[in-house]
Amino acid sequence: MDLSKIKDPGFLKTYSDEQLTTLAQDIRSFLVEKLSHTGGHLGPNLGVVELTLVLHHLFDSPKDKFLWDVGHQAYVHKILTGRSEQFDQLRQYRGLCGFPKRSESEHDVWETGHSSTSLSAAMGMAVARDVKGTDENVVAVIGDGALTGGMALEALNHIGHEQKDLIVVLNDNEMSIAPNVGALHSVLGRLRTAGKYQKTKEELELLMKRIPALGGRIASTAERVKDSLKYLLVSGVFFEELGFTYLGPVDGHDFQDLKENMNYAKKTGGPVLVHVLTKKGKGYAPAENDAKGTWHGLGPYKIESGEVVKKPGPPSYSGVFSDTLAKIAAKDERVVAITAAMPGGTKLDQFEKQFPERMFDVGIAEQHATTMAAGLATQGMKPVFAVYSTFLQRGYDQVVHDVCRQNLNVFFAVDRAGLVGADGETHQGVFDVAYLRHLPNMRIMMPKDENELQHMIYTAIQYDDGPIAVRYPRGNGYGIEMDDTLKEIPMGTWETLRNGNDVAILAHGTMIPVAEEAAKQLQSQGIQAMIINARSIKPLDEDLLQSLALREMPMLTLEESALQGGFGSAVLEYLHEAGFHSSVVERMGIPDRYIEHGSVPELLEEIGLTAEAAVERVEALIPRKRRRA
Amino acid sequence: MDLSKIKDPGFLKTYSDEQLTTLAQDIRSFLVEKLSHTGGHLGPNLGVVELTLVLHHLFDSPKDKFLWDVGHQAYVHKILTGRSEQFDQLRQYRGLCGFPKRSESEHDVWETGHSSTSLSAAMGMAVARDVKGTDENVVAVIGDGALTGGMALEALNHIGHEQKDLIVVLNDNEMSIAPNVGALHSVLGRLRTAGKYQKTKEELELLMKRIPALGGRIASTAERVKDSLKYLLVSGVFFEELGFTYLGPVDGHDFQDLKENMNYAKKTGGPVLVHVLTKKGKGYAPAENDAKGTWHGLGPYKIESGEVVKKPGPPSYSGVFSDTLAKIAAKDERVVAITAAMPGGTKLDQFEKQFPERMFDVGIAEQHATTMAAGLATQGMKPVFAVYSTFLQRGYDQVVHDVCRQNLNVFFAVDRAGLVGADGETHQGVFDVAYLRHLPNMRIMMPKDENELQHMIYTAIQYDDGPIAVRYPRGNGYGIEMDDTLKEIPMGTWETLRNGNDVAILAHGTMIPVAEEAAKQLQSQGIQAMIINARSIKPLDEDLLQSLALREMPMLTLEESALQGGFGSAVLEYLHEAGFHSSVVERMGIPDRYIEHGSVPELLEEIGLTAEAAVERVEALIPRKRRRA
Repeated sequence: MDLSKIKDPGFLKTYSDEQLTTLAQDIRSFLVEKLSHTGGHLGPNLGVVELTLVLHHLFDSPKDKFLWDVGHQAYVHKILTGRSEQFDQLRQYRGLCGFPKRSESEHDVWETGHSSTSLSAAMGMAVARDVKGTDENVVAVIGDGALTGGMALEALNHIGHEQKDLIVVLNDNEMSIAPNVGALHSVLGRLRTAGKYQKTKEELELLMKRIPALGGRIASTAERVKDSLKYLLVSGVFFEELGFTYLGPVDGHDFQDLKENMNYAKKTGGPVLVHVLTKKGKGYAPAENDAKGTWHGLGPYKIESGEVVKKPGPPSYSGVFSDTLAKIAAKDERVVAITAAMPGGTKLDQFEKQFPERMFDVGIAEQHATTMAAGLATQGMKPVFAVYSTFLQRGYDQVVHDVCRQNLNVFFAVDRAGLVGADGETHQGVFDVAYLRHLPNMRIMMPKDENELQHMIYTAIQYDDGPIAVRYPRGNGYGIEMDDTLKEIPMGTWETLRNGNDVAILAHGTMIPVAEEAAKQLQSQGIQAMIINARSIKPLDEDLLQSLALREMPMLTLEESALQGGFGSAVLEYLHEAGFHSSVVERMGIPDRYIEHGSVPELLEEIGLTAEAAVERVEALIPRKRRRA
Repeated sequence: MDLSKIKDPGFLKTYSDEQLTTLAQDIRSFLVEKLSHTGGHLGPNLGVVELTLVLHHLFDSPKDKFLWDVGHQAYVHKILTGRSEQFDQLRQYRGLCGFPKRSESEHDVWETGHSSTSLSAAMGMAVARDVKGTDENVVAVIGDGALTGGMALEALNHIGHEQKDLIVVLNDNEMSIAPNVGALHSVLGRLRTAGKYQKTKEELELLMKRIPALGGRIASTAERVKDSLKYLLVSGVFFEELGFTYLGPVDGHDFQDLKENMNYAKKTGGPVLVHVLTKKGKGYAPAENDAKGTWHGLGPYKIESGEVVKKPGPPSYSGVFSDTLAKIAAKDERVVAITAAMPGGTKLDQFEKQFPERMFDVGIAEQHATTMAAGLATQGMKPVFAVYSTFLQRGYDQVVHDVCRQNLNVFFAVDRAGLVGADGETHQGVFDVAYLRHLPNMRIMMPKDENELQHMIYTAIQYDDGPIAVRYPRGNGYGIEMDDTLKEIPMGTWETLRNGNDVAILAHGTMIPVAEEAAKQLQSQGIQAMIINARSIKPLDEDLLQSLALREMPMLTLEESALQGGFGSAVLEYLHEAGFHSSVVERMGIPDRYIEHGSVPELLEEIGLTAEAAVERVEALIPRKRRRA
């Protein structure tokens, strides 16, 4: 069928299984074709085609509320709610968002990006319904990986307690972004294979029948035995213990099985957990047979061969991080690496090959990861938590309370710092400077290139007086030459990259090339800009800053992080603290709003974080007469 | 025995049960006596006397590591590790800390205050041990309440997976700070009463014996029935499912029972959970029979009568909050209140009496609470999450990602903002301005008194364009007259409390009286200070600020929050943004370090956040010649 004709999911109500099957095929072909050009989360969406069809078949969105945990599996839902024509612009600037987006459709009732939020939000919606006295269904679809996140477990606990009507669909694909970690995973494993215990149950019933009538007490024991076996082996005791009615396991690619169980869930009062087994990448061979997780989310690919289009390029920052850490760990047995379900993204999978006993993937559990690192540090180890800037937000209290307060030597390798591009506003790593800088004892650095990154990693491991965060961007370095020998960067020191007497541009990381381009343009207008690599965001290089202030140099700070409370603010704070009340300081960075998806250059252009904008700011700062032409 | 003679817990190794029993009595008498003067967490400590004695009897601290979750139950441990003589200064300025403190003793290996951190830290210590190849035991003592925190669940999941040697003592007192919430609680309830199922198991074995030999398949089924019943009913299936060896329930006041199980736990490989039942307040009648939780943590009391010494005073900020909210909720059905296990502290227990169906205690689960509030807001409700400033840190990512990003009408009633006093550095509410201010869409206010608080609460509920945080201090208001009619405070507006032409003091909340006192002192020196109630911390009153800048008024900002990224920084950011590069701005607030326990006035004195200090700063700012004597 022509998917562009779908404006509303209502037509699905009367669809037969046959029609659903055909439509599922059409949707799969559509996704495989469209994403081959744009890239996107192919695997997760191919896995939920039947599930999404059945949800829209049996429920009435938007009256009934669907919440997509993490949200990268909502493409099918987007197609069924009239957005297929926008897939050519998927995850592109001003194009279709890769996650649910309330401004896109009334069918998107909850926005996601970070994992494990759907159950809490669903609980809020169920409470709202009951207070208002309306009767909509609330359905949260959550993956097995997202279920290991602490907030999902908090929500399960509370939902089980309150017994509100609410359906949790556990989308168990046995292969979330990384192989699943944790004891819960093995609980799910037992449930998955429960079929083979069905036999045991039958045998038990046979056994019971052979027992003569034994009088009240024993008979009730026999009943209890039956119940408990069923309870334990077939019915998902873990979830039942938490107060849920457990249904499953359900074949997530079988319309009949899905419909039966979903219908039953709809009729059942209280919280219901429907355990649905799906296969990521279902229906497209390269994605189905994906041992490495390549097809979870990726760029363009060739449909026939399944070949992923790769642009050759310099090593990624993440790769340099992992390689450098391995190099250090080979000589320093104190180094222990931790990831929260991102071994591939952080490239710690490379580190793990060399040091399997010193790498821990804790699951989607940034809180636990942070405090486990703190525990390691109390014992003289050198724990490294490699984590995306946006996900470390989950561990904020643990950074405050466990790491910084006890001034422990935990090294936060803050990956994906700054704008990340296509994943959009839920993933931009723009707050870390602001949320870490106000914490006592914390040090924050950012390298100007991959060579400086390796030295910062070495510095962070050598440092013995508390926590350090080294933030580095998504993507590749510049391919510059890497020093053979690692060296320590003196704490709190900046370096002058370019001399000039008219204005000092204080920048770091990705903003250094912007500063350099701006300086070049300024020079052509007779303005000599000094460029300072302000690689230490906390502490500041106060000596250098003081010397600039004493020379009455106008300053421009450039940062790829939130302006409010950011690096530029730190400069202002220092100057006023030190009594330089008349220093001229202009700040450029991420404005006080969430930044949507798009390529990083497009986004930087949109928010005016460019060399051209920097030139304008400086020009406005320096009266024409002061310029030396 | 004379507890002051205890310097080290080693003497306990050879103690008989009789000696332990006598010592337990001495410790109880000591605690009841000492705390009657100083106040403190009496109930929790009376509950763990035997448990703590047995731990020090069987293990070798500090080689073996004890981690006290939350940490307010570590008094017995402090006595046994040579600190009894410091109890006269418990929780007082420069006196004994109410929580474990690494600088106090080598036996305090992990500092706490916030709940649910001990399992993650213990995991870190166990990993460190195994990497180093040493053999110490790691024992985490965690309460049933703390176990509902998401990070503890994350840790359980990971520990169960990794199977490291590690002992978790579940200190189940059935009465954490608030009655326990959640499905986990009922799991514990079933375990507590497991004794009565022991009979069932025996009956089952009898049943099995009556069955004739049935051949391989059925026999093995029968075996499995036995195993699963035991598993399900007696052995704590929930924890076993997660990969723990479950021991218990153990009578936490019976030395024999405790020793047997702890010894067994010590010998057992992998993670072990020892489920210990204790009674809060054990051995002191008023604390034992404490339905309201008064004896959890309290001020001085009279030993004989159990009468708590109460100073009469004006209504507390928390009380005004709850009463006002109830007043509004009576007319506005959209209001739903949420607490994370703090119904008493936030005074929402009062609100709950009137609106039981619109108050939710979600357990120690700030992440879930925040996002549940967001879910409510998507459905047009007006959720209010009342939470201590320091505990909202746990929900930071949810505030960023779920509330602010979707710009939802969630009202954060941020209680205990500013210094809190005796609870010390883990509880000071000094970071909220810094961690909320950089978030797009967030508004932050702080009232100068309890009357302004009620209007701010009204304002927050009326506001329809996104999240608002109203921060207010611990303790009582000033007893000022309360307006009868609630009114809206126009968003982002400040008010001028005092006119003056020499300096503008910008303050809010608890700093208003400081500003007033400073202004008085300055006046006597011929300096006319203007006082501005900068009650809106975000957004700023830019019009007013601009007018001050245009008049070239020197400014002093006063805030009881972290200086880095705080309110004063916001003022600097605005002024430079608006081109006022030469405005003279001095900032006073909480310096860049953690602030220990003590009375709030002592702490303010220590960090120089006083009227006298403010006067000095202003004097330095204004040349003598400019003063109008």
